[in-house]
Amino acid sequence: MSIHATITQYARMLDNLDAWLQAGVAHAEAKKFDPDVLAQARLAPDQYALVQQVQSACDAAKYAAAYLSGQTAPSHPDTEKTVAELRARIAKARDYVAGFKEPDFAGGGERRVAPAWMQGKSVGGDAYLTRIATPNFYFHVTTAYAILRHNGVPLGKADFVGVKSWEEIGDW
Amino acid sequence: MSIHATITQYARMLDNLDAWLQAGVAHAEAKKFDPDVLAQARLAPDQYALVQQVQSACDAAKYAAAYLSGQTAPSHPDTEKTVAELRARIAKARDYVAGFKEPDFAGGGERRVAPAWMQGKSVGGDAYLTRIATPNFYFHVTTAYAILRHNGVPLGKADFVGVKSWEEIGDW
Repeated sequence: MSIHATITQYARMLDNLDAWLQAGVAHAEAKKFDPDVLAQARLAPDQYALVQQVQSACDAAKYAAAYLSGQTAPSHPDTEKTVAELRARIAKARDYVAGFKEPDFAGGGERRVAPAWMQGKSVGGDAYLTRIATPNFYFHVTTAYAILRHNGVPLGKADFVGVKSWEEIGDW
Repeated sequence: MSIHATITQYARMLDNLDAWLQAGVAHAEAKKFDPDVLAQARLAPDQYALVQQVQSACDAAKYAAAYLSGQTAPSHPDTEKTVAELRARIAKARDYVAGFKEPDFAGGGERRVAPAWMQGKSVGGDAYLTRIATPNFYFHVTTAYAILRHNGVPLGKADFVGVKSWEEIGDW
């Protein structure tokens, strides 16, 4: 396992997230409702709506790639309101994380990571990736998927994993 | 990053999942409804209920540890119907995966993994862990969490990650 393999997987999941949003738009058109209603949907009144789930997933991936490579993450302000804007946000995060190569993360596991919200404390790179970035990233993409499923968007497990057929896994 | 670090993280998340179920029981008692109503709750009519989400999370963790160490996974039949039974299922999976040590996974990344559902095909150990086990594991724990949140169980992000205070992350 390498850090790069995990970051590459985040990029794949961001592609999948984009495909779920496209399925949401198609569902809205078929049912004749405004697709942007989905952007404000949530599973509990005190939980993030789809907008913030997507923004948070993008940030979890972006910051993991930045911190573990020693780069400064690009700024992506949380201004999105529509599904189209969310898709553009995903594309920015996806392109950023997909641009990293294996050597960019050399020594990343031992790097001390100090996100602003830790207020001066730091955490080791490996612990950051395994215990913070990955749980948070999957939390937000899965909750986004759950919001869409709860609202009737026709999605299944193959869409979550992003495989067209289970056969193709044999080539991984 | 090591395979062992990821498997250890699965064990932590199973502990967290157990704590969410305990919060669900406490919520049911406070609201005077049968806690086992939660076991059959789901977010969409054609999605797994909480019971199967928990069973699937347990299996994702168990099989990843077994396949990548070359062991045969213990059999845990899907017989659970109550929250108490789900907690016992989690304990079995948690104890199994927490019992592995770093050397158990030596060479695991290069091992070919051939789950029964792949019908004779196989996938490399690293790809199995990064592209199948981890997305599936977090899919099921997050959906379990989402089902509980949707049903009013008072949980927050710190419960998901399993930290009592954000301060403690500075020691990781």
